[in-house]
Amino acid sequence: MRTAILGTGLIGGSVAAALRGRHLASRIVGYDLDPEVCARAVALGLLDAAAATPAQAAFEADLIVLAVPVGSMPDVLADLAPALGSSAIVTDVGSTKADVLAAARGALGTAFARFVGAHPIAGSERAGPEGADPDLFEGCTVVITDAGETHADALVRIERLWQSCGARVVRMDAAEHDRMLATVSHLPHVLAYALVAQIAAQPDAQRKLSLAGPGFRDFTRIAASSPRMWRDVALANRDAIGAELRGFVATLQRIERALAAGDAPWLQQLFERASDTRRRMNRGENEQ
Amino acid sequence: MRTAILGTGLIGGSVAAALRGRHLASRIVGYDLDPEVCARAVALGLLDAAAATPAQAAFEADLIVLAVPVGSMPDVLADLAPALGSSAIVTDVGSTKADVLAAARGALGTAFARFVGAHPIAGSERAGPEGADPDLFEGCTVVITDAGETHADALVRIERLWQSCGARVVRMDAAEHDRMLATVSHLPHVLAYALVAQIAAQPDAQRKLSLAGPGFRDFTRIAASSPRMWRDVALANRDAIGAELRGFVATLQRIERALAAGDAPWLQQLFERASDTRRRMNRGENEQ
Repeated sequence: MRTAILGTGLIGGSVAAALRGRHLASRIVGYDLDPEVCARAVALGLLDAAAATPAQAAFEADLIVLAVPVGSMPDVLADLAPALGSSAIVTDVGSTKADVLAAARGALGTAFARFVGAHPIAGSERAGPEGADPDLFEGCTVVITDAGETHADALVRIERLWQSCGARVVRMDAAEHDRMLATVSHLPHVLAYALVAQIAAQPDAQRKLSLAGPGFRDFTRIAASSPRMWRDVALANRDAIGAELRGFVATLQRIERALAAGDAPWLQQLFERASDTRRRMNRGENEQ
Repeated sequence: MRTAILGTGLIGGSVAAALRGRHLASRIVGYDLDPEVCARAVALGLLDAAAATPAQAAFEADLIVLAVPVGSMPDVLADLAPALGSSAIVTDVGSTKADVLAAARGALGTAFARFVGAHPIAGSERAGPEGADPDLFEGCTVVITDAGETHADALVRIERLWQSCGARVVRMDAAEHDRMLATVSHLPHVLAYALVAQIAAQPDAQRKLSLAGPGFRDFTRIAASSPRMWRDVALANRDAIGAELRGFVATLQRIERALAAGDAPWLQQLFERASDTRRRMNRGENEQ
């Protein structure tokens, strides 16, 4: 299968590595918004060749994987659309789905039936093709979106591809995906960025950070993620994230009042509810 | 050295394991608010014997380590004070220092000069003596507080003990410790508890949590920590934590406005500041 990967950073590079490691791609051509990043992916052996434009990468490809930041999807889709083969399947790995589906629908015309929105819920705070890992998707969940007019065989092919890479596939519509991920992914990223940025702005930041223990390191690991990628996600899903943020601010204000009042039972109850839920996750009791 | 460990959960149990593993304690007697926890620590071989009261554990001990939740320190100190030997050193492992020093000062009288407040910045989401790890303190930072009247030889003995367990020791006054830790430890714990509790209260919590990826797992790992311990920490340091919370709420409200306005440059700048700072931590550039 001739494959084009548009966006050759951590996730695009890992898709390339996963496909190649499992002999699922005969030839992989890459494109990146930053040609230097694409050149590094070629040098690392993740790609067979670097293309100068999305259209050039998509030319003669059977499968096109969009792995650019979601804010860049409309431009990349518009560029590749005229070069799209009549049976090529297009998919993506973006962290938001409603905006990516809308961009694909707008750019691809009737070929939108061969577009399968996908989101592998994997990641790493490493960035760039140097962090690419052929096993990044082993055991991860991939959400696949059916836009209604999506061809059944295109959906099945993308699902099988992800399953071949070791992932568990879940079908969901784009709006539900975006609402759910706002809670369990986008909001946590925003909170981690906000906390580290707030500390960094303090005069004694260095001294404070020198006292950070393993809990702080775990909590803020995702704040090392790509700022550009997450800026795009935050803006693309801003309504759902905004709603989650407002709910979270209300929770924090309630905690502030409990602290001021010395309300030990209320705090313990809140902490216990969280602790019970999080420990069940450790025991794998939230899998569906 | 005859040692008493009051509070034989994860941290107290790990202190016992660390001292025993390094042949730093000839005999370790334990006490826990929950006698069943203490019995488990004896059964696990962490302790030589279980005492029924703090006073009984402290009797004839050269070193007494307080590892109960900080809210229980006043009662435990009051109980053990009359049994304290004339040269015994008392220390603690609490996550807050001003309240613990005040409790020790109030309970110990002139023996307060032999009390050394300490805080090993280590931890784990595991709870109970079953999670005890003799190497938990390897490479961790331990803050030691000098209350002014603290005997120099007591300070040095406790510092050497922690260094023998592989820790890096930093001296700091209690107020500075509590202010710093509010930022890099107490606030993150409160945020992690708040987020998981908020999700747990939603009707589709199970489905959302089934979509949680590795980023969410890292971010919320500390929400599995002991609710009782953290309730006490939150209340003991509520002024500093309250101030951090208010600052954080203001940051979140600013982010909300940026999202609503679609202010991409501002969001990217915030995320970049956080990401740069967090990546420097990964490279070890915040060590002092």
